[in-house]
Amino acid sequence: MADPSLEFELIARLWRPLSNEHAGSFGLRDDVAQLPVSSKGFVVTADQVIEGTHFLPSDPLEWVGRRLVRRNASDLIAKGAHPVAAFLALAWPTGRSRHELTDFASGLGQTLASECANCPLMGGDTSTTHGPLVASLTLIGQPLAATGLPILRSGARVGDRLMLAGYVGDAHLGLQVRLERLASDGLAGAVAFAQAPAPPPLAFAALVAQYAKASLDVSDGLLADARHLAQASQVRATLELNSLPVSQEAQLWLAAQPDRISAQLALATGGEDYQPLMAIDPADAQSLTSAAKQLGVTITDIGSIEAGTGLGVTAGNQEIDLPNRLGWQIRAD
Amino acid sequence: MADPSLEFELIARLWRPLSNEHAGSFGLRDDVAQLPVSSKGFVVTADQVIEGTHFLPSDPLEWVGRRLVRRNASDLIAKGAHPVAAFLALAWPTGRSRHELTDFASGLGQTLASECANCPLMGGDTSTTHGPLVASLTLIGQPLAATGLPILRSGARVGDRLMLAGYVGDAHLGLQVRLERLASDGLAGAVAFAQAPAPPPLAFAALVAQYAKASLDVSDGLLADARHLAQASQVRATLELNSLPVSQEAQLWLAAQPDRISAQLALATGGEDYQPLMAIDPADAQSLTSAAKQLGVTITDIGSIEAGTGLGVTAGNQEIDLPNRLGWQIRAD
Repeated sequence: MADPSLEFELIARLWRPLSNEHAGSFGLRDDVAQLPVSSKGFVVTADQVIEGTHFLPSDPLEWVGRRLVRRNASDLIAKGAHPVAAFLALAWPTGRSRHELTDFASGLGQTLASECANCPLMGGDTSTTHGPLVASLTLIGQPLAATGLPILRSGARVGDRLMLAGYVGDAHLGLQVRLERLASDGLAGAVAFAQAPAPPPLAFAALVAQYAKASLDVSDGLLADARHLAQASQVRATLELNSLPVSQEAQLWLAAQPDRISAQLALATGGEDYQPLMAIDPADAQSLTSAAKQLGVTITDIGSIEAGTGLGVTAGNQEIDLPNRLGWQIRAD
Repeated sequence: MADPSLEFELIARLWRPLSNEHAGSFGLRDDVAQLPVSSKGFVVTADQVIEGTHFLPSDPLEWVGRRLVRRNASDLIAKGAHPVAAFLALAWPTGRSRHELTDFASGLGQTLASECANCPLMGGDTSTTHGPLVASLTLIGQPLAATGLPILRSGARVGDRLMLAGYVGDAHLGLQVRLERLASDGLAGAVAFAQAPAPPPLAFAALVAQYAKASLDVSDGLLADARHLAQASQVRATLELNSLPVSQEAQLWLAAQPDRISAQLALATGGEDYQPLMAIDPADAQSLTSAAKQLGVTITDIGSIEAGTGLGVTAGNQEIDLPNRLGWQIRAD
């Protein structure tokens, strides 16, 4: 077996600065970290990025670090929580250079600093692997809602509106270009987005906490995640494809597709959008939309919550058949 | 890229039972978990096992799951803390069978249940990889000390005794047999131990919290970790090799070695022993030893804390030269 302990040298050079000298990190010199005392409690998410699964071997490592943080921050934002502590487990390929490792740490650190309100890296483990890079981050957050609870998937009620922050589809289009399944013309923004899809700014978490009755981030695909929300809330969700908020690039791409509905479904099932999908009381819709606009976030009413179960999709108010694949799911063996 | 989302089916079948229906896990059906409110605060450790680095590809997967939990539990026990929540990030090789995955989950779950006081698995992520298995666990604990603080590496003072729980060296001997660098004769117990080295029972955490002024688990190697403790506490540690507590198998192995000191040093630098190494006020030594005995744990006085810096090693009270390698460390590039 290889020597697993790259750690001593690295902790000092790369990770310790990311601890922001937070007292509870003990300078990353001990075996555990201590969370600050919180009367509001803590929520926790743990997600990973795997070379060849979530990113391409040729991807710049700075973007891989960025992607890892955003993947987790997206979960906290959509639950109305602020990150307060991060823990990294890194399986670092023996064949990759120290320079790439510095790039990874830089992307991770900058994203914790600029997009997670200087959330400290408080611990973890760095070891070597003979295989592809695997990095997992545990992000611990504090819920912002007055209840002290995260906004769950299960709070949607009949009569709520389904509202989405930002756009969907760019991550899908960008990935298709990067996999050479689509020409890159006119999709430079989508390609950049797909390298490290970005959730809305952290301040949006407070709006989720204030206004959303149910919420989750769109990671598996809009249709799949809408169905998750409906299932958890024991209601039916119906989405209108023509309301799908997409970027200017995606609008132009859509306009050039021979089968518009199929193209819209591709965007609504591609996944990795990292935008909060929320169930909102209609009385709050305008307040949320206005407050989000102050943060530069577009809110779109994309559907309704009704009595029943499952998911419906309409195009121009005509119900259409659901695609076989609602998102980035595995098929059963 | 591969489909990263094995999750839906697996969560239900394998992981949900391990959540023990803990309210804050939301049945592993949401995107975050919520920790219970704790007036004592929380400590956190995150550690991983990597195929080819921390375990052999042929290792039974049940033992890999067990090893992962113990690696993390060892950190909490040595800090005087009890585990309360676990989060798993699993990069699962596409070529391994569902049967092996069930074995992994079984080892993980049984160890959380029987050795971590039914600590619930409250979240995480399972994705596929084209490379070797990588599993990381974040274990969140509650400190047991009256101060609400973990027992750090930095609390040792001149005059304290260095005391070790259990034995060292079996993990090293067992690994050497498994790598076919040693004959297996008489080392069956060491081989079994090395598959998933075990810390003392969880109840030992309360003794650490009550008696230890400084503590860490011996994972890098006894000499390396003694030096870590001395450095953090700004004192000198001196260990007596002839006081090294070893198992009966290791005693017989030692007796057969031509160079006893070299053989003792091999046991004291092999690592992965997962036994707490503690700085103890001499006035507390007997109380700790008696209380530990009630738990079936042997406590051995292996050295002293003195004024100065660094590490000294004696054999029969004669100071000997330190080996070049104190533990399982990487050399600088």
